[in-house]
Amino acid sequence: MNDLSAAEMEEKIAELAASIDPSDTQAMDAARDRQVTLAKVPGSLGKLEDISVKLAGITGKVKDIDVTKQCIAIFSADNGVVKSGVASAPQSVTQSQTINFTRRITGMSSQARYFGIDVLVTDMGVAGEIPEALYTDKMVIDGKIPVQIVNRSLGKGTEDLSAGPAMTREQAMKAILTGFEAADAMKEAGVTLCGIGEMGIGNTTTSSCLLKALTGLPAEDLVGRGGGLNDEGLAAKVKIVGERGAAATDLDPIDKLALVGGFDICAMAGCFLGAAKNHIPAVIDGFISIAAACMAREFNPAVTDYMFASHKSKEIGYIAAIERLGLEPMFDLGMRLGEGSGCPIAFKIIEAAEASMSLMKTLAEGAIDAEYLEEIKRGHYLD
Amino acid sequence: MNDLSAAEMEEKIAELAASIDPSDTQAMDAARDRQVTLAKVPGSLGKLEDISVKLAGITGKVKDIDVTKQCIAIFSADNGVVKSGVASAPQSVTQSQTINFTRRITGMSSQARYFGIDVLVTDMGVAGEIPEALYTDKMVIDGKIPVQIVNRSLGKGTEDLSAGPAMTREQAMKAILTGFEAADAMKEAGVTLCGIGEMGIGNTTTSSCLLKALTGLPAEDLVGRGGGLNDEGLAAKVKIVGERGAAATDLDPIDKLALVGGFDICAMAGCFLGAAKNHIPAVIDGFISIAAACMAREFNPAVTDYMFASHKSKEIGYIAAIERLGLEPMFDLGMRLGEGSGCPIAFKIIEAAEASMSLMKTLAEGAIDAEYLEEIKRGHYLD
Repeated sequence: MNDLSAAEMEEKIAELAASIDPSDTQAMDAARDRQVTLAKVPGSLGKLEDISVKLAGITGKVKDIDVTKQCIAIFSADNGVVKSGVASAPQSVTQSQTINFTRRITGMSSQARYFGIDVLVTDMGVAGEIPEALYTDKMVIDGKIPVQIVNRSLGKGTEDLSAGPAMTREQAMKAILTGFEAADAMKEAGVTLCGIGEMGIGNTTTSSCLLKALTGLPAEDLVGRGGGLNDEGLAAKVKIVGERGAAATDLDPIDKLALVGGFDICAMAGCFLGAAKNHIPAVIDGFISIAAACMAREFNPAVTDYMFASHKSKEIGYIAAIERLGLEPMFDLGMRLGEGSGCPIAFKIIEAAEASMSLMKTLAEGAIDAEYLEEIKRGHYLD
Repeated sequence: MNDLSAAEMEEKIAELAASIDPSDTQAMDAARDRQVTLAKVPGSLGKLEDISVKLAGITGKVKDIDVTKQCIAIFSADNGVVKSGVASAPQSVTQSQTINFTRRITGMSSQARYFGIDVLVTDMGVAGEIPEALYTDKMVIDGKIPVQIVNRSLGKGTEDLSAGPAMTREQAMKAILTGFEAADAMKEAGVTLCGIGEMGIGNTTTSSCLLKALTGLPAEDLVGRGGGLNDEGLAAKVKIVGERGAAATDLDPIDKLALVGGFDICAMAGCFLGAAKNHIPAVIDGFISIAAACMAREFNPAVTDYMFASHKSKEIGYIAAIERLGLEPMFDLGMRLGEGSGCPIAFKIIEAAEASMSLMKTLAEGAIDAEYLEEIKRGHYLD
């Protein structure tokens, strides 16, 4: 992939993004029909019913859909914009958390360890040192702990977007294609449900910039305190997002990402597109993840048919983003950790939806009539 | 238990309810302290942090709390008030669903089957026929499918509460003690996390009546359409709840239950109290479950320290009930199925909270310093 020319990358991204199948509406109709006949008041399983219908659209199957082989793809990168004082945490946190994903001791990865969820960690451009011993070139998803860190670094973080483009168009394209590569690796490994997360100090700023460029909303509606920014930092962040986000308004999606995005978000956008191409349902985590999902939608709106929104982020810009995608979050537990930490619980909700659809019986199948009672009396228990 | 005199039952209930330990505040403080030192922005795991603190209060442990041995206790009973046209579904559904729990083909039990959650089904007074072959006298929780139905029936449903008391004070006490018995059976089986659910056509009416008696709110704020009641039925339900709920206002908790409750709700209230007595965290399902939780609180307010609210029910009366308990629901998926169907997802959220607390490391434990990097280079990976 690194050998592709700029023109070849352009073509490949366009081709891959265009290759997303529309939802299987026939399977969705069949799923809706079955939900109505299941032994319950129609609609009484609420959003679990909607989830089962969407899964049908993604997989073409109504029931017995495997959602158990799960992976969270994490893309780590630093952002030059932290030089402008928009982040409360030191940049070194990107490096330490990226390493700590391999140890499964962070918020997301501890849950992943507990639930047996694979983690695919890719260094897209972490500024701090990642020891060679932790690096791998291959995107392997094999359930082993420690996982290694896939080295796809495009540099020691981006440039400061407040002063100029965060990256070149070529870098943005490379990062997007790395996201596709991760999705293909998941497909290869048999992953049937994925989450897309990140680690990168400063990436609520890049996310807000991209949403500013997409929505044109006032920066105040898109900028929050991230990890815990003070008033001064917040003012700087609002100013940068307002100005630099607006500057990206009329650019094509790749140039938007190059001007005000991050390596992590480029890869995540590519991964959402790649997951859709591969018919793998992809779970959005929090604010950065949903900004990346919005960018993926710019390449092909059909990508949203393959997305599930996990939790409602506390970041104010989340509201505009979720509306833009036409999705609804599954839950709101007041989480604002990032990393993909909303994905494990979302996976369990999706499993619950799938289990209800597959294991519940219809009113007819579950009828307790005189005949059934007679069978029981004769010792024939029908499960 | 059935041999106890009325006076003996009075005494036993009072004694059991009084035996609930207060939360272990020392363990809760230690849990809060640990949450602050974990490698994340304090508070960034939102309600997952609150859940871990509450678990510490219940178990006296800060981490490595077992929440994996799970059981949903279901109490089934019919309600004479259905004669007054307050329910949209036929009474036979109580019988068929109760039997279908044993087959694990209902909304709750299909999820329980999928996630490996035990189910304890108790007939408190189902009107329809339960074949002898499905009955058992013993409350056994052994993970086997089919489970049998524990026979603690107090009759073929209650009397019509619109015309007089739903049951006698003795029946209410027997049902409450059956709830304690179920909690003890769960303790005996090593259950470490339970849910408390129900099946009983007409039991949103009994729930609303009890909440009317407890809160004094207008019936309109406490009465919903249950499974799908029409306007005429809704008007009848509002009238009955307003009049009969008010009539129960000044009675003691047992007489409240006897006048306008159901066998299911009595047992559920006892089960919440028994779970608390046994230090088993108990998950509230939807509207009927939370009405029972409110009744349990009348016997001893400390019981709420052992409760978790799963999903926000669509029934309007849920709002008053959750406020009364001082709890917050974990999620809102638009579910209104009952049966304990909100419990499996809540169990997974509680597991995620516990996993975060137990498997995350503190900033110090997870520090990636020069020394750590040197160790990695020498091939010593520290997990």
